[in-house]
Amino acid sequence: MSKLIAIVAGVGAGTGAAVARKFAATYPVVLLARNPDSFKSLAEEINSSGGKAFGISTDVSDSKSVQNAVNAIKKEFGSDVGAAAAIFNASGGFTRAPFLELPEEAFTQSLAVSATGGFLFSKATLPFLLQGVNQKSQHPPSLIFTGATASLKSSAQMSSFSTGKWALRALSQSLAKEFGPQGVHVSHAIIDGIIDIPRTREWMKEAGPDAKLSPDGIANDYWYLHTQPRSNFTWELDLRPAVEKW
Amino acid sequence: MSKLIAIVAGVGAGTGAAVARKFAATYPVVLLARNPDSFKSLAEEINSSGGKAFGISTDVSDSKSVQNAVNAIKKEFGSDVGAAAAIFNASGGFTRAPFLELPEEAFTQSLAVSATGGFLFSKATLPFLLQGVNQKSQHPPSLIFTGATASLKSSAQMSSFSTGKWALRALSQSLAKEFGPQGVHVSHAIIDGIIDIPRTREWMKEAGPDAKLSPDGIANDYWYLHTQPRSNFTWELDLRPAVEKW
Amino acid sequence: MSKLIAIVAGVGAGTGAAVARKFAATYPVVLLARNPDSFKSLAEEINSSGGKAFGISTDVSDSKSVQNAVNAIKKEFGSDVGAAAAIFNASGGFTRAPFLELPEEAFTQSLAVSATGGFLFSKATLPFLLQGVNQKSQHPPSLIFTGATASLKSSAQMSSFSTGKWALRALSQSLAKEFGPQGVHVSHAIIDGIIDIPRTREWMKEAGPDAKLSPDGIANDYWYLHTQPRSNFTWELDLRPAVEKW
Amino acid sequence: MSKLIAIVAGVGAGTGAAVARKFAATYPVVLLARNPDSFKSLAEEINSSGGKAFGISTDVSDSKSVQNAVNAIKKEFGSDVGAAAAIFNASGGFTRAPFLELPEEAFTQSLAVSATGGFLFSKATLPFLLQGVNQKSQHPPSLIFTGATASLKSSAQMSSFSTGKWALRALSQSLAKEFGPQGVHVSHAIIDGIIDIPRTREWMKEAGPDAKLSPDGIANDYWYLHTQPRSNFTWELDLRPAVEKW
Repeated sequence: MSKLIAIVAGVGAGTGAAVARKFAATYPVVLLARNPDSFKSLAEEINSSGGKAFGISTDVSDSKSVQNAVNAIKKEFGSDVGAAAAIFNASGGFTRAPFLELPEEAFTQSLAVSATGGFLFSKATLPFLLQGVNQKSQHPPSLIFTGATASLKSSAQMSSFSTGKWALRALSQSLAKEFGPQGVHVSHAIIDGIIDIPRTREWMKEAGPDAKLSPDGIANDYWYLHTQPRSNFTWELDLRPAVEKW
Repeated sequence: MSKLIAIVAGVGAGTGAAVARKFAATYPVVLLARNPDSFKSLAEEINSSGGKAFGISTDVSDSKSVQNAVNAIKKEFGSDVGAAAAIFNASGGFTRAPFLELPEEAFTQSLAVSATGGFLFSKATLPFLLQGVNQKSQHPPSLIFTGATASLKSSAQMSSFSTGKWALRALSQSLAKEFGPQGVHVSHAIIDGIIDIPRTREWMKEAGPDAKLSPDGIANDYWYLHTQPRSNFTWELDLRPAVEKW
Repeated sequence: MSKLIAIVAGVGAGTGAAVARKFAATYPVVLLARNPDSFKSLAEEINSSGGKAFGISTDVSDSKSVQNAVNAIKKEFGSDVGAAAAIFNASGGFTRAPFLELPEEAFTQSLAVSATGGFLFSKATLPFLLQGVNQKSQHPPSLIFTGATASLKSSAQMSSFSTGKWALRALSQSLAKEFGPQGVHVSHAIIDGIIDIPRTREWMKEAGPDAKLSPDGIANDYWYLHTQPRSNFTWELDLRPAVEKW
Repeated sequence: MSKLIAIVAGVGAGTGAAVARKFAATYPVVLLARNPDSFKSLAEEINSSGGKAFGISTDVSDSKSVQNAVNAIKKEFGSDVGAAAAIFNASGGFTRAPFLELPEEAFTQSLAVSATGGFLFSKATLPFLLQGVNQKSQHPPSLIFTGATASLKSSAQMSSFSTGKWALRALSQSLAKEFGPQGVHVSHAIIDGIIDIPRTREWMKEAGPDAKLSPDGIANDYWYLHTQPRSNFTWELDLRPAVEKW
């Protein structure tokens, strides 16, 4: 197994877990989530099936908590460990409400996770990714951000979610321009549709089995981005079910 | 003079002051800035030339400070006062730095002013603007946000500024969609170029007298947005000198 | 009255006629339309109310026809006449059809008017506009293009309309960048909504008197663009009724 | 080998040839180019190495020529043959010139190839692709368009190229929305950089071996798009070298 690691923030029932499983086939994976319940069974599953997973309870919006995670990674994997991939899949809570009824906390919490969290995660993982460049990783080390429909459109009554998502997209574009020339591949994926997870299992059933995005499909897409060579980097792609209206 | 007021946040040497002067020709203006030095002489100038200006020292990123401003406005103009315009011209500090050297504080301060500040200002002023709709203002009450080149592009080493600006643009789009049908005209202006203020006086001199954006010109543009009727609302326009490369 | 002229292509019952009336208050106006019936009564109206209008039957998609119009303009106003404004309001026919049933002619006709027509009109009018710069027009000479919702979004079954409109927007952006520094102000207006013309009079009545864009309002907006000084040019703005969903 | 075919328009020294080779590993490929010299040696290479290639001299901007190609395909592969992929890689000539010196022919030729050519190619290939859906192709049949930097930005003096490219992008978006629900995957790739072909071999050498886009890399990217399942379609991605400034 690779000496390089992959770091995934925001592992829950859906995309994050699928991405972690996919990258765990090649790299030891670090699983970050605020609540250990979010990564516990996933870590066990990966560890018991021949991979290596290391979960760290982390609040990505809190710089101390993120620094603790960095320290824990260095303690576990060595202080000169490099990363082949870092994937930011965390997101602030989704609130739809008339603007004048939107609590300040809903707005700032979304920014704290999507914008500040994206910033702190990038600050924490880019040194590992640059170390991956030094260590001549097989594929260019990748920093991938999960976006949404709301990364491009800001709908009525949804400003708390979209402001965080637009900020995160801006961050990813700036980082792509700065770190591409340094060998790190920064990408942003627009997930434009409902993801097929337990919570959405009953939704859109009448539209057929392909009407929701598959988390494993997203994981494949992220893996594909990871394998692109330095001559052909994608910053952004959109992903949606064939039947989605847009 | 109108019973309706105009509220301008971020009055300094440039755009904010020019906008305040322009709107003061028709409305009593409330001037918000953190430092009273930013609005003192402007308020005197307006008050001594037949207008009415009322400065309130306000930190737009702090909800208590913004609430104090709301209370002061009601005390000064009456608790049922309506607003014809609210203009958000505040901006977090501009930092250009390699990402890994960017202090967390620079990042969060930009978000605090541009994103949270935009949110708090909108929460505070929309009730006044909706009151302006009720009181049948001559022009549809306007909520105008000042954007920048960095509202559309996120350059290397400039993520702290652009994330705040993208977030603010997202906020303005969501509000335009929600409050347009309620009669409030929400706009976002992309200021794409250097503004001609004392600090930039010596810049680009060789490019001629029109190579920088005129604050008074921006004020005219904002006033024009304000006068558009309900049938013809502009959400976004860009503004740049004729000679600007883009 | 100004010695500089304004040239309007695509004058019919709606925007074009309103724009022509507006600019006719200041400039002699040249009215271009394929069918003289489109400009005849408008020209009479302007000429009989103190303005000057000169109609020329022109197919903007045909270079010979456009050259004839240029010759006619020079014959009427002098070979060194300058223009203060040129407004391209022509549009290919709007067809909504399943793609495989869309006749090739519908597709190429839309391109011929919107893209090739925009090109030929610009080629024909830019020399007049540059002459307007030389003759120190009061306002920077303006070249304004009328866009639509379909200039930004390309919906299913509407490719013939949107391809022409995207092409026209591209043309306008390129021209803005090339001719701004030469003193010509090139703009593109996104008309996002139904325009209130005789054909649409009965539409959306339940949504109130402001639910459709007013042609006179659009004319005001174009005039405003025309009056912007060289320090503050707008390339693009959107225009939509307050109640429009977007 | 698959009974389904792949059709590639615009095969020359670079992307088109690489794409044809890639898809020829799985599908018989039809090679379209105006000049048979563009596909002759490529067809021989594919045919002599175990694949099947069938070249047809075709002018994609001429509906009769495209219809001839359709007839030739049916004659060669059977009238009910389905397609797994159709790739439009043709482009009008690139001209950089001051607008007033740009020949009308340069402008209309770019539109004829990029816009009308894209339209005629789509009209011709979509029935084969829908037949591929009926015949339960392993991967959703794909219609892929090659875009460029100029698909998003329209620079000064480059209007002839960008208008065609913007029109093609509009076409691809409309088709993606209409044919996605019918099972055809329509994509658009923004090629943002110099492609490494014989003509550009000496360019940018000092920037290293990865400073130009690799045609084989683009072919891999197109193949990846082709293999995405119906739950996870990408309409658009950008592709650029790691060191590219953007």
